[in-house]
Amino acid sequence: MLGCGVVGSQVARLLREQADELAARIGAPLELVGVAVRRPNRHPDVPVVEVIGGIEPVRTLLLDALRGGKSVVSANKALLAEDGATLHDAAAAAHVDLYYEAAVAGAIPLLRPLRESLAGDRITRVTGIVNGTTNFILSRMDATGSGFDEALAEATALGYAEADPTADIDGFDAASKAAILGGLAFHTRVTAGDVYREGIGDVTAADIASAKAMGCTIKLLAICERASGAVSARVYPAMLPRSHPLAAVGDAFNAVFVEADAAGSLMFYGRGAGGAPSASAVLGDVVAVARNRRNGSRGTGESAYAALPILPMGDVATRYHVALDVADRPGVLAGVAGAFAEQQVSIQTVRQEGRGDAATLVIVTHSAADAALAKTVDRLTGMDFIRGVASVMRVEGMPGE
Amino acid sequence: MLGCGVVGSQVARLLREQADELAARIGAPLELVGVAVRRPNRHPDVPVVEVIGGIEPVRTLLLDALRGGKSVVSANKALLAEDGATLHDAAAAAHVDLYYEAAVAGAIPLLRPLRESLAGDRITRVTGIVNGTTNFILSRMDATGSGFDEALAEATALGYAEADPTADIDGFDAASKAAILGGLAFHTRVTAGDVYREGIGDVTAADIASAKAMGCTIKLLAICERASGAVSARVYPAMLPRSHPLAAVGDAFNAVFVEADAAGSLMFYGRGAGGAPSASAVLGDVVAVARNRRNGSRGTGESAYAALPILPMGDVATRYHVALDVADRPGVLAGVAGAFAEQQVSIQTVRQEGRGDAATLVIVTHSAADAALAKTVDRLTGMDFIRGVASVMRVEGMPGE
Repeated sequence: MLGCGVVGSQVARLLREQADELAARIGAPLELVGVAVRRPNRHPDVPVVEVIGGIEPVRTLLLDALRGGKSVVSANKALLAEDGATLHDAAAAAHVDLYYEAAVAGAIPLLRPLRESLAGDRITRVTGIVNGTTNFILSRMDATGSGFDEALAEATALGYAEADPTADIDGFDAASKAAILGGLAFHTRVTAGDVYREGIGDVTAADIASAKAMGCTIKLLAICERASGAVSARVYPAMLPRSHPLAAVGDAFNAVFVEADAAGSLMFYGRGAGGAPSASAVLGDVVAVARNRRNGSRGTGESAYAALPILPMGDVATRYHVALDVADRPGVLAGVAGAFAEQQVSIQTVRQEGRGDAATLVIVTHSAADAALAKTVDRLTGMDFIRGVASVMRVEGMPGE
Repeated sequence: MLGCGVVGSQVARLLREQADELAARIGAPLELVGVAVRRPNRHPDVPVVEVIGGIEPVRTLLLDALRGGKSVVSANKALLAEDGATLHDAAAAAHVDLYYEAAVAGAIPLLRPLRESLAGDRITRVTGIVNGTTNFILSRMDATGSGFDEALAEATALGYAEADPTADIDGFDAASKAAILGGLAFHTRVTAGDVYREGIGDVTAADIASAKAMGCTIKLLAICERASGAVSARVYPAMLPRSHPLAAVGDAFNAVFVEADAAGSLMFYGRGAGGAPSASAVLGDVVAVARNRRNGSRGTGESAYAALPILPMGDVATRYHVALDVADRPGVLAGVAGAFAEQQVSIQTVRQEGRGDAATLVIVTHSAADAALAKTVDRLTGMDFIRGVASVMRVEGMPGE
């Protein structure tokens, strides 16, 4: 085992405590022959020592293991999202297994269902809440009306956010997971760099209030979609109707909503992080690898035959919610509607809130190319009767489109 | 393929429509070489004919297939719950696969996660809404306040209930699924006959109102639990707090809530029935079997090493909600409390509703042996100051016990 931190120590504990049960399930005992840790003096009782962390030297270590005929179980989402292809190729060449259930949504059995249970179906869309830190923050903002900074401070105090929360807040963690999900769901290869990404740092209490006014909540969503013969993979905060099953996923929980041609809508829900939940996923993979080995076989390998191109974000069909502080005088609505029409964006609803200096126009569009929506917002900000853009947010999961 | 009804016809359609994709995923084409149907004149375009249905002769046909070295994919929950052991033994002896993802909760990938993803963890409890018909009926009763008969009529009119709804309403269907889930979750064998079973036919509008008054809804739950070195498998309607993730599962949807030592709480949600969803599950299994065959291997077989005894229902720890129409006079509460104390049942809350002739005493107990709770209710019905027992319902999923 490489590493013995929050997850590794739990894996070691489960291996010890459930030794008899695991042996019965596999038909042979599991033995942990060594643990490699970065700071050996922190683990005086552990015999094997090695240095690991980040992308390298882990990649090299795992490639050496795979090429040496060892199956690998990993929870390293960053590495798998950046260069999973190299690892998969090495595993296939050596006829060994490469499993990484813990890399996405912790304990939730998700990758195996995607690559095995749904292998006879055609997945059309995967929408996930896959980062617990940001879900905790957005849930708090929704529950208390507090601003982002306040909710982040609370998350930090409670241990839900790390000292440097950039990877979570800016969506890098969710983007890695989106890359892994998109690849598995659509039988293609997606890297973290292919994923369009916006974090939650700019979500305001006003955005949350706007969302509430239309029966929505705001969630950081990782979305993978098959469209126009390509794959779209993207991460951003979006408004989601409260009636959507993902809307009720609160605190630091994760959930992934899968839409498939035949299966319809499915949702997988559970703890996305933490030592014990991640260890459960790691051990599930270890048992699978061990069973395969007993069987003289290997499990389902990578299935990336589709080799789909990545759809640029500008071409992705999305819907926008736009709240504009406007001058309350005749012709304003016509001017606003004209700006949308100019970009061929169709408006679903317009609602004026307040009068006079407090007049706000709230627009929800039908779905249109993201680039056209972005251009429309740019155009609106320059118009003289628009006093300000109060809120711009994508809308996902609305029925009737 | 044996049978070509609602599910079979969808399997045939998917096999045809996705032929290229499936071949790419497996590495070899899938060919449907024959279909056996009961009434060949209904399927003039199908070349192979055979009669099937119920437990027999399907069991014989599947055993012949397994013994002949054919892997089997089945959606027959009744057969698997009654005599899965014989089928599993035959599959193991012939070194072939026996998969049946579609038998429980239709399209929801559930059995594979239980037998593979969670193989490194210790599952403590599985609580499922696994019957769409009864969930639709209870959801309607909850939403409209209607009685059972009215809701059943609506379900029948909408096609959610069969002409003879006995198997659904009386919990037989859910009991078969509970048997399968209990066996997989606890590495043991559970048959349909081992499952304690109560249907929803006696659930009244008054029960639903009582549930609402304490922030609960009523769901038909299939529960499998490891307790006292044994397995409890049971199906009954129970009150469930609205804050529980299963409480929001409405209409004909299914969901299964799994609790495990390391993974914590997980939930799997989706469509539990219908041709296309079930076909998705069947085809996922077919792809798995085909991949194994290409690999010269077989997948995870049955894991029933634990051979746990079945806990009798009387010994199961449950909680009761009891609403009693009582005479409104001094000493009544003392008498009621005495009846509970006599059976060593501890009361969590007592609430009096109404006065005089309309006085009702609502009691929620702590958890106690089911037999003790049942005896307490028997004892209460005989007491002179009790005018009637308005509602008795088990309570599940309450925090704080």
